[in-house]
Parts: sequence; structure tokens; C-alpha cells
Amino acid sequence: MISFEPIGLIHTPWTQLAGMPIQPAGARGVRGVVEVWQPYQAGLKDLEGFSHLILIYHFHRTSGYELQVVPFLDQEVRGIFATRAPKRPNPIGLSLVRLAAALPDGRLEVEDVDMLDGAPLLDIKPYVPEFDAPTGPVRIGWLTHLAHQAENKKSDPRFSP
Amino acid sequence: MISFEPIGLIHTPWTQLAGMPIQPAGARGVRGVVEVWQPYQAGLKDLEGFSHLILIYHFHRTSGYELQVVPFLDQEVRGIFATRAPKRPNPIGLSLVRLAAALPDGRLEVEDVDMLDGAPLLDIKPYVPEFDAPTGPVRIGWLTHLAHQAENKKSDPRFSP
Repeated sequence: MISFEPIGLIHTPWTQLAGMPIQPAGARGVRGVVEVWQPYQAGLKDLEGFSHLILIYHFHRTSGYELQVVPFLDQEVRGIFATRAPKRPNPIGLSLVRLAAALPDGRLEVEDVDMLDGAPLLDIKPYVPEFDAPTGPVRIGWLTHLAHQAENKKSDPRFSP
Repeated sequence: MISFEPIGLIHTPWTQLAGMPIQPAGARGVRGVVEVWQPYQAGLKDLEGFSHLILIYHFHRTSGYELQVVPFLDQEVRGIFATRAPKRPNPIGLSLVRLAAALPDGRLEVEDVDMLDGAPLLDIKPYVPEFDAPTGPVRIGWLTHLAHQAENKKSDPRFSP
């Protein structure tokens, strides 16, 4: 067992799973606030220079998991690790957001938020293309003709607890 | 406290922090094996269609953290959340790797591995540009003139336990 303690909370307009965007692509411009708690705020120094952040958080409104699921974008059963569905063996969420403003009180105004309101924040990493963007061609398997639909597709209750 | 149970181990040639690459950019072509344990292997279905995976793992050879550090690439003190240094409040590692082969026994042959050998695996997510790549211009703050050096820069013992 590896235990982590949240360092803050993510506030978003999404208070229930049904109807929320399934990825940042479907949440362009949607504003949220990342609240980093006081004991960790000194770690935010220099963050304002970055345009994009990777947020790592807890999918706090899921329970249990299935190893194979029918993802929101598909009609077929897929392995959970080939999907971004929240009911995973370790319900860790990962989202790229745009940093709009880093406020002096430890709040980060961000855009393109696709996570549920109140998600416990575990880590913030600066997005750096040299580290995080692939070189060479990318293949995306079963999502090949589906990923672009993420912009319009909304969540439904299938992964609710 | 949020507790996670590892789903496998990541095997790499890097057995000590000193001298290892500091990012996948410095580990191009370096092979590793992601060993997913039997109870979770059914979740790997469909993964072989993806060229790149995001691995989430535990920085298992760190202890404690500092909120401000001098990163490998710099001479100035930076906020930990504006760096990718391992001694973080929650020592969660995130690396993009190329998937070379998904073997039937639950092992994934991957390339560009930059993590320490034996890192406990927490999650695997498929890399999907529509979800994980920024739209619009990217700024990388203090790393602006430094990120490209990650290809050649090696780690040193400063973040050892």
C-alpha cells in the first residue's frame, strides 16, 4: 500500500458525473480553481511561467473497478488501461489544464477542467513538451476514429459509484 | 489519506539515481519492461493499438520532500510544483513511454524509460493527443532555455534519500 495525502482541492462546475465532459477536449475554456493548501503553497513558486499544468488527482466519486469496460466513446468492451475511464484499480486522474492565473493565496485559476468538483489534488507538474509530447508518429488504437468526438460527448452515469 | 496498491513493477536499466536520465528525452530508445501482475492483466486488452503510454508510478527511492529545490537543469531555487523533481509532497512519477510490444504474459516492452528500476506501477493510461496535447502556444517558464538540455543532462545524487 502506498498512501498519499491530498495537497488541495480542485473546484469545477461539474458536480455530477452525468453530463460532464469526458476529457479536457470537451471542456475548452471551462474555468476551475485549484486550491493548494497553505502548507504546500511555497512549492508553487515559478509556476506562473508555465502555460499548461498536469494535474494528478483522486477520482474521489468512484468506488471499485472493472478491468474491462465499455468506454463513453465506444460500444465495445475495452481493457481499462486502454481507456481513461475513472473506475480503475488505482483511481488516479490525470488532466492537462491551461493555467490562467496563479494567485498569491495559493489558488490557481485554470481552464479546460474536466474533473468532478472537489477532487482531491495529489500533485501538480508543469507541462513541458520536451518531456510530455511524443516524438514520432502516434497510434491511438480503438480511439482512432473516436477521439475527436470527445469534444462533444458528455459523460453518463455508467461509472458512478 | 488515499491509499493505492501497486499493480506491477517497472524494470529499467537504471539502478541508481546518479547518472540516470532525468526525463524520457534523455532516455530515447532505452528499453524497459512493465510487469503487470496477473490479477490486473485483463485490463491490458486493446493496449497494443497505442504507440505511447503514460505510466504513473511511485518514486519509491525518495523519502521526505522539499517545497523548493534546485532542479538538475538549473542553478536557482524553484518551487517543487514547477519542477519534475522526485522529492515531492506526493512522490508520484509520470512518464511518457513508447510501447514496443504487449506480451501475452502481462509484460509490456517499452522504450524511453527514465525511471528507477523496480518502481511500483500505479496506473497505465493510453496517450491520446486529443486529451494530452495542448492546443495553442505553450510557455515553459524557467525551463525555456533549459528543457532541451534534458537530452544530455544526467541525474546526480541530490534527490537521493
